[in-house]
Amino acid sequence: MLSAECGAEEDTREQWQIRALVEYDGTDYFGFQIQSGKPTIQGELEQVLARLAGNPSRIRYAGRTDAGVHATGQVIMATLAWRHSITDLERAWNALLPSAIAIRQVEPVTEPGFHPRYSARSRIYRYSVWTARWRSPLHQRYAHHEPKPLNVALMNEAAVLLVGAHDFASFGQPTQGEVTIREVHRANWQLSGQLLVFEIEANAFLRRMVRTIVGTLIEVGTGRQSVAGVAEILAARDRSTAAPPAPACGLCLVEVKY
Amino acid sequence: MLSAECGAEEDTREQWQIRALVEYDGTDYFGFQIQSGKPTIQGELEQVLARLAGNPSRIRYAGRTDAGVHATGQVIMATLAWRHSITDLERAWNALLPSAIAIRQVEPVTEPGFHPRYSARSRIYRYSVWTARWRSPLHQRYAHHEPKPLNVALMNEAAVLLVGAHDFASFGQPTQGEVTIREVHRANWQLSGQLLVFEIEANAFLRRMVRTIVGTLIEVGTGRQSVAGVAEILAARDRSTAAPPAPACGLCLVEVKY
Repeated sequence: MLSAECGAEEDTREQWQIRALVEYDGTDYFGFQIQSGKPTIQGELEQVLARLAGNPSRIRYAGRTDAGVHATGQVIMATLAWRHSITDLERAWNALLPSAIAIRQVEPVTEPGFHPRYSARSRIYRYSVWTARWRSPLHQRYAHHEPKPLNVALMNEAAVLLVGAHDFASFGQPTQGEVTIREVHRANWQLSGQLLVFEIEANAFLRRMVRTIVGTLIEVGTGRQSVAGVAEILAARDRSTAAPPAPACGLCLVEVKY
Repeated sequence: MLSAECGAEEDTREQWQIRALVEYDGTDYFGFQIQSGKPTIQGELEQVLARLAGNPSRIRYAGRTDAGVHATGQVIMATLAWRHSITDLERAWNALLPSAIAIRQVEPVTEPGFHPRYSARSRIYRYSVWTARWRSPLHQRYAHHEPKPLNVALMNEAAVLLVGAHDFASFGQPTQGEVTIREVHRANWQLSGQLLVFEIEANAFLRRMVRTIVGTLIEVGTGRQSVAGVAEILAARDRSTAAPPAPACGLCLVEVKY
């Protein structure tokens, strides 16, 4: 990629626009978005890119996950000067990132106007609940522990009420603008052994929306809230009616669809 | 349980013999067995028991797992003075243990002469290998990463050769005595997504036996070793013929059968 012509080195480097699929363990981070003086996923990704490509530029991303939230399918986009192959970039980036963050795949951006957030058609989040009576050392990093018996059938009845285009103002705040209408494509709880996993896909989510839904549906599971009560919360469009958000550790951004 | 009679307090406490099912994340421990000046699972369990019951006594256990190895089904036995219920003991023990260790269940020992190691009929270990090209931050604590493509069918062909009563001297050292014959009941690899899991059940295992078998079978998977070569290693009864043990992080003691 290095041009043989003379001139400042910066000018001889080709600018690439790349997108990457990122996995991370959010346990020790203050969320995805960069914050000064605090470890963040974005901060780590940009710092390594600046070392590799010498031109520190802001990366774009699909979802701003909160402190403690994990991802297997975060999508980011970066513009960088890189003389070598995409595979080399992937390898070098992974070699320099901390073990809690990995680049699963790097691709050149080919669609004009692509933006990881605005071009996304839908997002899939998963929330894991460890339902055994005893706390599990092997699950505690990635699952919230709920030792009370849960009625999964009722939790699924309530989850179905959320499917469709609704005003989710009771379940979260918008990250930008005022609109609180989102379209949930599917929302379902599935028990696998002692692990109860909620998977939800929507065109987009409000801040804290998945965790607030999960907190509310767990209350349905324990009998503290009724299925009809969830319909009322949705209709109220008032954040104070829903349960507090479930803990961050159980949440994972698993896929962004374009 | 407290007797109303006078006398030294120690004399009024009833001695219980209990067995407990223990789960732990071995990442930050120097193995199960107590070692002075180093954090061990046994050390943590005994320290809390001494605080609860006031009589520090050695606990007995089913399997001496190495540094970094995990368990969901370790079995231990303890004798202790305890005035309250078994459920209270379970709760108090869990409340005082570090988050990496949990008591899943406590039961009174009813069989005379029960010993968690000597009474065991068989043990089941699981070894997890993360097989994707990229390292996985969400699997790295509990799975060894092998990015080379693996031929799972060949790995299973070689695993079958180990089933039955054999002299496993090539695969490990005895923890006690000289006998290196063990009986493997089953040994099988199963792929679930990108996670390849080996499950092996035997009457007992030599030290490092599971990890050395795994290391050797991974070499079969990558093509570095042949299935016939594994038969030769088994027949050689010579530790230098097998591969180095696979890393501890992938190993978990899942069950002890009595």
